[in-house]
Formats: sequence, structure tokens, C-alpha cells
Amino acid sequence: MRVRNVKDKDKILLEASNVISNCQDYCGKWSSVFKNNNPIYLEIGPGKCKHLYLQAKSNPNINYIGLEQNASIVAIALSKMEEKLDNLILINANAKDLDTIFNHEIDLLFLNFSDPWPKKRHAKRRLTSLDFLNKYDNIFKDKCYIYQKTDNMNLFEYSLVSFSKDGYTLEEVYLDYHKDNMPLITTEYEDKFSSKGMPIYYVKVIRDCQ
Amino acid sequence: MRVRNVKDKDKILLEASNVISNCQDYCGKWSSVFKNNNPIYLEIGPGKCKHLYLQAKSNPNINYIGLEQNASIVAIALSKMEEKLDNLILINANAKDLDTIFNHEIDLLFLNFSDPWPKKRHAKRRLTSLDFLNKYDNIFKDKCYIYQKTDNMNLFEYSLVSFSKDGYTLEEVYLDYHKDNMPLITTEYEDKFSSKGMPIYYVKVIRDCQ
Repeated sequence: MRVRNVKDKDKILLEASNVISNCQDYCGKWSSVFKNNNPIYLEIGPGKCKHLYLQAKSNPNINYIGLEQNASIVAIALSKMEEKLDNLILINANAKDLDTIFNHEIDLLFLNFSDPWPKKRHAKRRLTSLDFLNKYDNIFKDKCYIYQKTDNMNLFEYSLVSFSKDGYTLEEVYLDYHKDNMPLITTEYEDKFSSKGMPIYYVKVIRDCQ
Repeated sequence: MRVRNVKDKDKILLEASNVISNCQDYCGKWSSVFKNNNPIYLEIGPGKCKHLYLQAKSNPNINYIGLEQNASIVAIALSKMEEKLDNLILINANAKDLDTIFNHEIDLLFLNFSDPWPKKRHAKRRLTSLDFLNKYDNIFKDKCYIYQKTDNMNLFEYSLVSFSKDGYTLEEVYLDYHKDNMPLITTEYEDKFSSKGMPIYYVKVIRDCQ
């Protein structure tokens, strides 16, 4: 996501009670942050957090964490939230460090409109590469449960093969998700691409943790 | 495939040396029909056999069988073949009877532009339903290897999930096969849909036989 630089981003993040800055300190203890044992759903790259905010607002019995590496985007997301929600926090960190931030405590992972990294030599950076799928093994609680949405056909093809080769079962696949479904909660990208008539690809995958 | 009735179809099929009429007699003995131990590739619903004929002509060391339930279509396919090929035979039978026709002797299965059976109550008739995938277990030799092509998005979505739930691994997935590939050997439907600019969906799946 291309975004303007927010000048006071570091100060904004530090002062926000719903942004956890020293996130590695909570590895294995995220339930204590939320002060309950509700399921924890993670979104990597939540952008301006429209999707995650609406999810959190609609499902007060589920805890949501958004992991975003760009501090300016986190600051913008904060400015767009109508109110602070007890069940939504943001982390400013790189997905590469996921397995040092979470220890078998995530119930579900959202990958919405992730960077497709179209060049072959960057394939490992895709959030559905085998490298990342291996990392996810360390963050999930019992079952590895991933929902992916994208507008990028090549990323979707790559992801289906990658999930399958890593032992995931495809529970649901849609090649034009909005054709037969009108989701109540969408992401900013989803609205943008869908309004242009572009298909939204969607898959739900599951497997036991290894 | 809608097709005209060929009046003398039964006579044509009976007299053609490359059509095996009493096919269940050869269950477990198909290598003897070809008089060699080359791999056997099967296509269910080969239509006018353009794809299968060109495959057989290009790969003389592979044996090909086309299983087609409509006798008129078999007669038309025969009339379109430039020459009889030693490594290509046709069978006029219903795919439901597959497991009484083959006994662990097929190396690869082509499902090209199969009937999508769009109504939910007909889902079992789709050639990628779990019912059919179970049948295929009895026909494959060592590995279950299936190549599917279709123009039908809903059938493709259904098939990906069905393959995955039955333990198949997706080796390759294309959501617009002709975009980056120009296959030398195509089917009649493939030419038709591709010329209209419609995407061709393509998947290769594999798993060990059970």
C-alpha cells in the first residue's frame, strides 16, 4: 500500500493504548493483553483497518490483532477508527518476525490483498510462500486456519498450489467472490477492485498444526 | 455435448477395430489390447477426439483410451480421424462403470470440459465429485494423476475443493491458462471458448492411490 508519510507517526503509535509497541514481550501471553481467553484472529497487512475494525465491532467475543509493518499506515488506521475497541489492537512489526511475536495462540489468519510480489525471485516474500506457511505453524493454536482474499490472479494461483503442497485442505474457493456473495465486511481494496468489476478471489484453507 | 444422431452408429462402432465393445472383458488386461506395456492415459468424454487423437499421434509410446457414453459421438470421432493409430482406442461406455472396466492400470486421467452439472442436486454426477474420485482409485496404477481443463468457473471451484478434500495435491493451477501458455494440443471446446476470449481453467492434481 502506497501511503503518505505521517510526520508524528512514532509519537502517535507510542501514545495509542491500542498499539502494542514492545510486541515480542507478549509472545505466548496475548490473552493477557485482552484480559480474556477469547479466540484471537490476526490480519497481516490490515492497511487502514476497515475490515479488521468492522470485524472487531461485529464480533465482540473475538479478539483481533492487525500486524502492519508501515508505521504511517498504523497511524492512519488509528485516525480512521471511530472509537477504541477493547478487542482490537495493532502491532507495528514485520511479518518475518511473526514466530517471535506469537506462540501457538492465533485461531485464524486473514491475508487480504497482500503484496503479490510478482517477480519470481521475490516469491519467498509472498505471504503464502512455504517459508511463511512454515512460520504460521508456530503462531496457530490447534488448527491452522487461513482466509485469503486477493484481486491478483497469479498470486491466487500460486497460493492455491502453495497451500495444497503444504498439506492444507481447501475448504472453500471462489474465483469471483462477489458474484454469488455480498459480504457485509469488506476491505478498502476489495471495495475498490469490486467497483471496477474485477473479480475477487477467495479461499479458506485449514490443516492441523505440525 | 449436443450432437446429431448417427443412424448407423451401432454398426460403425461394431466394425471399427479401434473401438472395443465388450470392454469389461478387458478389465485388468488393457495392456494386452495394445500389445505393449506402455503407460495408459484415459480421457473421459473425449468428444470428437481432437485432443486425444493429437496426443496419441504426438506420443507413440503412450497408449490412449477415450471413454465416451454417446455412441453417435464415438461414430463422429471415428469419422474425423485421419488414420487409425495403434496407440488409441475408444470405448462406448458410461463413466459410472469405470471401476468395472479398469483395474489399476491407468497412469493419467484427462477431464476436459466435462459437463458441469450446475444444479446442486446433480453434484454427484460431476466427474470430480467425491463419488467419482473414489471410483478413480480403482483405475489408477500407482499414483492418481488427473489433468482437468474447463471453461466453467463453478465446476472449477467445486473441483479444486473436491480434489483437496480427497487428499489430492494441486501441482499446477491456472485461472486463465492461455494467458501465459499456448498449448500445442487443444480440445474443440478449448478452441471455441478461447477464441471468444473466455478464460480456460486448468489444474494438475496428484496423490497416492488408496
